[in-house]
Amino acid sequence: MPRIMEMIKSEVQACIDECKQHINDELLPFWINRTLDTANGGFITHFDKDGKDTGEDEKSMLGQARSIYIYSSACRNGYHAEQTGELARQGVDFLLDKMWDSVHGGFFWLTDRAGNIKIDEKILYGHSFAIYSLSEYTLATGDLRGIDYAEKVFDLIQKYCLDSHYGGYFEMFDRSWELKGSGPAGGDRKTLDAHMHLMEAFTALYECSQKEVHRRKLIEIIELIIDKILHPKFKTGIPQFFADWSVAPQIKFDIVWGWDRFSEDGSKGHAEDNTSYGHNVEYAWLLMHALNILNLPFTNFTDIIRKQYDHALEDGIDWEYGGVFVEGSHSGGVYDREKEFWQNAEMLIALPQACLVFDIEKYWPAYLNVHRFVFDKMIHHQVGEWWPLLTRKGEPIWTHMSHNWKINYHTVRSMIETIKRLRLLRESIG
Amino acid sequence: MPRIMEMIKSEVQACIDECKQHINDELLPFWINRTLDTANGGFITHFDKDGKDTGEDEKSMLGQARSIYIYSSACRNGYHAEQTGELARQGVDFLLDKMWDSVHGGFFWLTDRAGNIKIDEKILYGHSFAIYSLSEYTLATGDLRGIDYAEKVFDLIQKYCLDSHYGGYFEMFDRSWELKGSGPAGGDRKTLDAHMHLMEAFTALYECSQKEVHRRKLIEIIELIIDKILHPKFKTGIPQFFADWSVAPQIKFDIVWGWDRFSEDGSKGHAEDNTSYGHNVEYAWLLMHALNILNLPFTNFTDIIRKQYDHALEDGIDWEYGGVFVEGSHSGGVYDREKEFWQNAEMLIALPQACLVFDIEKYWPAYLNVHRFVFDKMIHHQVGEWWPLLTRKGEPIWTHMSHNWKINYHTVRSMIETIKRLRLLRESIG
Repeated sequence: MPRIMEMIKSEVQACIDECKQHINDELLPFWINRTLDTANGGFITHFDKDGKDTGEDEKSMLGQARSIYIYSSACRNGYHAEQTGELARQGVDFLLDKMWDSVHGGFFWLTDRAGNIKIDEKILYGHSFAIYSLSEYTLATGDLRGIDYAEKVFDLIQKYCLDSHYGGYFEMFDRSWELKGSGPAGGDRKTLDAHMHLMEAFTALYECSQKEVHRRKLIEIIELIIDKILHPKFKTGIPQFFADWSVAPQIKFDIVWGWDRFSEDGSKGHAEDNTSYGHNVEYAWLLMHALNILNLPFTNFTDIIRKQYDHALEDGIDWEYGGVFVEGSHSGGVYDREKEFWQNAEMLIALPQACLVFDIEKYWPAYLNVHRFVFDKMIHHQVGEWWPLLTRKGEPIWTHMSHNWKINYHTVRSMIETIKRLRLLRESIG
Repeated sequence: MPRIMEMIKSEVQACIDECKQHINDELLPFWINRTLDTANGGFITHFDKDGKDTGEDEKSMLGQARSIYIYSSACRNGYHAEQTGELARQGVDFLLDKMWDSVHGGFFWLTDRAGNIKIDEKILYGHSFAIYSLSEYTLATGDLRGIDYAEKVFDLIQKYCLDSHYGGYFEMFDRSWELKGSGPAGGDRKTLDAHMHLMEAFTALYECSQKEVHRRKLIEIIELIIDKILHPKFKTGIPQFFADWSVAPQIKFDIVWGWDRFSEDGSKGHAEDNTSYGHNVEYAWLLMHALNILNLPFTNFTDIIRKQYDHALEDGIDWEYGGVFVEGSHSGGVYDREKEFWQNAEMLIALPQACLVFDIEKYWPAYLNVHRFVFDKMIHHQVGEWWPLLTRKGEPIWTHMSHNWKINYHTVRSMIETIKRLRLLRESIG
């Protein structure tokens, strides 16, 4: 074995050990010890920098669904399986009992902790996570309630969200699935974000159901994203579109699911030339995962995927201070040099995947860079979760450990999926 | 009143009288006297030139659904209402009891007379008529079984048929709604025919249900047809496409629903430059009807509709022998000068509509031409129904009065809808 490969092999092993220690001793214990709402069922998802419950009287269907995904995936992959499986089950109980709309179908967007409705709207983004988590829950536990409701949600979004003229899915609906108006209401927009997460969700749905219609719509959305949503030249993701797939300047919607980086008035610099490095590599590894589940070769997609990785490597990795920048131009140039938790989490999964499929000597140094930044700066080791936002150099800007839109979907999944790929990498080195 | 308008008014009245006499005394009695299958329920739909049952042991879901539409519409419009309403009810009984697939949903394509399955495939074209007829049935009778199953079918085709990549609907499926293969199996094609009849079906569905999702998908398919299916310059209909809406040369499918005019080997002359005058004006009046039900103005569509009418007037009307040619080129020139029943039936409805909306002096002479050809040559008055196909001069070529793919949908609807428009025209003249 060449000396360089021996060195990488020992680095891979050290990273596996560090990730395993983090998920087993810090990350999952953080959640297992505090997330269950013993009074109402479901999950408490608001914790401050010390991990103390901040008391917001809210449960988002997105936060509940993402939690169900995480506990199901942890259970399926053998991390604190007994406890995480039980948490997943309790989450499904709450989601189905309190958040399902038995009149119009679908899940309400926001309730209070007891399950009383606060926002009754139907948001596609959240429903993609309902499909994702409920499918993963059945895959992990065998409880068929998961796939049953995942299929119900799939059927609803085919009926209410699909745009039969231009293809793709509309995203913002009222309680009865009536399409919302234009502009910030979002009824006239289509986004990379929702479509990428539908691809992720349909992957888990097909993995669980093995039904032809789920396979077909998964393949269609893979082709749709490549055809309409990726930049025609750079293959980077374009965030927002109008219904006819003409590029729309990025605006902030009335319903948000992240602490999106807009100015106070909802506007954004570079609103028409903006792409997220973390989102692009998240898309890349999710696409390769979807192709694996479909049992299709990567061949038709490798040029696209390599362009995405190389754009992220050239512009997105901070070779000076470590970690991943927030976003920048499609053609080159960084707009936002802060470090947000989720882009770093996704880069951790994506880079060992690139090492496995493409070129270990090219992508491994980038992984090591991001791994060190995450473990040295981003993880709040005393508490167990990750800081949500750091300065370029790694000082915390936002300090909450969790809220409706952060919780544990990116962080725990990052550890589970990264360890999987690092192990394969270790084996591939021999 | 100008002398020309006085003359037209008396011609309109004479045509109304002739149509009323035909539907009341010839056409509906033909059906009322022989179509009910007293042994098995549902309708017998195979009759020879003398109106004798030819005995084919088949019931097509298309023939049953179209019959339900016709008896419902006749009932709703007061033609032999008691008998036609009862026929419609008996047809719905058979369709739901014998043709509905309680395992996978949807209607089987073909059974024998007793209702045993002969072809279990799910064909979109037929399901558009299921929606159309079941909605019209509830509108006519108030029996909610109709709209209940119409909505079930709508939901199924949103789930299984919609192409989430390119928009529009796939058309050919096996029993479990798995998309069929390419070529003559039809799984890779999209057609004007199916999409136009979906527009027609969603119009009746929305008229009955008043649900927003039905309204939205109706508007989407209106825009889709204009955007993708009409010739960009001539606005004439293009028959076949591939999934991505590139024009496909017309081929004959394994499953047919008309006696399509292909050669023995399934090929067609002018397979890439062919349009049907009757189909184009049928589309035009169905579009105006849809806009009326949606309570939307015609304004954005008048240029398109006029082009379709004028193309049909210039090339499609036989000013020498009367009636409507079968088909020809988009840019001008007739390929097939025979006279088929359904193009003539649709032209009868479309031309008084054009008189009402556009220009009575321009379109009335064309109506009179086609009316005379139909009443003098096409109607087999001794028996009551129409000859299916005549030579250019009006001699019968095919002579059956009915089979699975002819029955009474075009002929009876033509009389009901033409009389409606002629009456409005009479009132508009004053």
